[in-house]
Amino acid sequence: MSDLEIIRHAPFNAETPERALRHAETPSASVYVRSNFGVPQLDWSHRLETGGHVDAPFSLSARELAALPQETIGVTTECAGNSRLTMLPLPAGEPWHHGALSTMSWTGVPLRLLLERAGLRAGATDVLFAGADSGPREDADGIVRFERSLSLEDAMRSGALLALAMNGEPLTAAHGAPVRLVVPGWFGMANVKWLSRIDVRTEPFDGYFQRQRYVYDDAEGVRPVTRMRVKSFITSPTDGDMCAPSASVEGWAWSGDGAITRVEVAVDGGDRWTAANVGTPASPHAWTPWRCALSLPPRARCVLRSRATDAAGNTQPAQITWNRLGYGNNAVRTIVVNTTE
Amino acid sequence: MSDLEIIRHAPFNAETPERALRHAETPSASVYVRSNFGVPQLDWSHRLETGGHVDAPFSLSARELAALPQETIGVTTECAGNSRLTMLPLPAGEPWHHGALSTMSWTGVPLRLLLERAGLRAGATDVLFAGADSGPREDADGIVRFERSLSLEDAMRSGALLALAMNGEPLTAAHGAPVRLVVPGWFGMANVKWLSRIDVRTEPFDGYFQRQRYVYDDAEGVRPVTRMRVKSFITSPTDGDMCAPSASVEGWAWSGDGAITRVEVAVDGGDRWTAANVGTPASPHAWTPWRCALSLPPRARCVLRSRATDAAGNTQPAQITWNRLGYGNNAVRTIVVNTTE
Repeated sequence: MSDLEIIRHAPFNAETPERALRHAETPSASVYVRSNFGVPQLDWSHRLETGGHVDAPFSLSARELAALPQETIGVTTECAGNSRLTMLPLPAGEPWHHGALSTMSWTGVPLRLLLERAGLRAGATDVLFAGADSGPREDADGIVRFERSLSLEDAMRSGALLALAMNGEPLTAAHGAPVRLVVPGWFGMANVKWLSRIDVRTEPFDGYFQRQRYVYDDAEGVRPVTRMRVKSFITSPTDGDMCAPSASVEGWAWSGDGAITRVEVAVDGGDRWTAANVGTPASPHAWTPWRCALSLPPRARCVLRSRATDAAGNTQPAQITWNRLGYGNNAVRTIVVNTTE
Repeated sequence: MSDLEIIRHAPFNAETPERALRHAETPSASVYVRSNFGVPQLDWSHRLETGGHVDAPFSLSARELAALPQETIGVTTECAGNSRLTMLPLPAGEPWHHGALSTMSWTGVPLRLLLERAGLRAGATDVLFAGADSGPREDADGIVRFERSLSLEDAMRSGALLALAMNGEPLTAAHGAPVRLVVPGWFGMANVKWLSRIDVRTEPFDGYFQRQRYVYDDAEGVRPVTRMRVKSFITSPTDGDMCAPSASVEGWAWSGDGAITRVEVAVDGGDRWTAANVGTPASPHAWTPWRCALSLPPRARCVLRSRATDAAGNTQPAQITWNRLGYGNNAVRTIVVNTTE
């Protein structure tokens, strides 16, 4: 059984309930699901082709893939459209609130190993990943397949896995069974589900999901969405809670551009921020816990905000630059609590 | 007993619960309260002085005022800081959500009659209204009194009342007993409570609440907040509701700049709007009912928005120009519903 907040049944899209985001690892039944098309029903005989600009193309069934050496990594992943609901004006697209976000452990075969086995040829620059899912789109001709690419460097050095298991259990169909790509630090669209083909290329890919969707489209032009922007939120207290004036405010922070180096908390409006204690993530690609003891005014409505900064020096903005398709909203969030005597 | 959502006890500030905003006239116990200082405890012997640039200054006790001819008018009033909580970045100031808004009937003596009785002298340009409430402010020297002014034209032609009763009952202390000014079409700060003095002037007033608070402070400079900006919201369904795909969406719209001429509703993101049926307000200064039958996608999360336009041609913006003190947020609001089969 799943414990999700459903946005749409066909294609199936559902977000993680706020209460499930308190856990360091999101319970499997509450891991958000993003689908662009119907869910392919594949079994362990499903084959993954690796080819293109390589010396030795090959294919492996999922069963064969599972016999290769495996790694397990903890990864926080956010949908690029997460928090779209709080963008003004509201863009078209799935109306994600803040729960298109989960932290999972993934077990699978390092992508790098397969690429090395195929033998990269000189001149290789990009790697394309194709899922088994496809369908028509309003703004495209014919049938569109879900395909995304990475630069060769990102494919080799990002720590990407061909994941066969999530949170210690074989992938379910909704999460991409039997095999999906997982790219740590990237927004979720990079994690191609129902992975069917890995194609090494000598030039960039410009397919539908690379140039028409999962792109920032604003005054600066159109660029593919890539790594997750620095972001944080408060897990305790929660919006609408009654709490004591002596409050411990806790939450998570993450970034695709480096470790979290600072988290600050503000009470009510204005620009006064208090530094939080930043903890250690359970794994390098999982979110970072933080905590801050605050003294709030008694018997009052209080507004709490958190703001994270990463090792690259990026800080969450008060407001993001609006983009047409509503991606990458990492603006500071507010929650409201009421204090006791 | 009051039925309010309390923001702060001292000074007392509390907003109208969302459910109470469904009524055409807000129940007295749920009318929002905005106080800048402690609540003066005055009785019917309290005197209102009328003077300044007039031929015949006079004073009247509240009891004497109550013996003059009365009018009753229905008025929608919104606090200038209403919806501050949804401004990004969050400005300092009371964290009003969307409930610093009520519609009341007021009974009292037309301001115009008192000004005529005093005999306006040539050269009169402004009228200052002083409340009995005062106190220290962080950004002002000494004790500040609550004082606001209107141009002489606004004082004479806006239909302002010296109100002695709200919703058919004598004013309570929290709402300004024994007498407050009510200026139809203006944000709430114009409705000076515990009214003590009316001072006809020959030049504009530049006191604390005219030039330091209740001002739009942005790139264009500092201007006093005046009339309510065109705005609307949805009363049914409410945020988080489950509803049938065949939905009747209803709500209120108002503006301080003229009658409501158009209300539109949007489902989900993007810029497709459907015209609603605009009804007739219970009185010219009360909000306007509207209704729109919609066909929503079944079994889905749907985002609903409403957008009003007034006779002066003003339309609610998708986003307001941010101002330092967080006033006048009339941006389009979103609510989220889930539809059944």
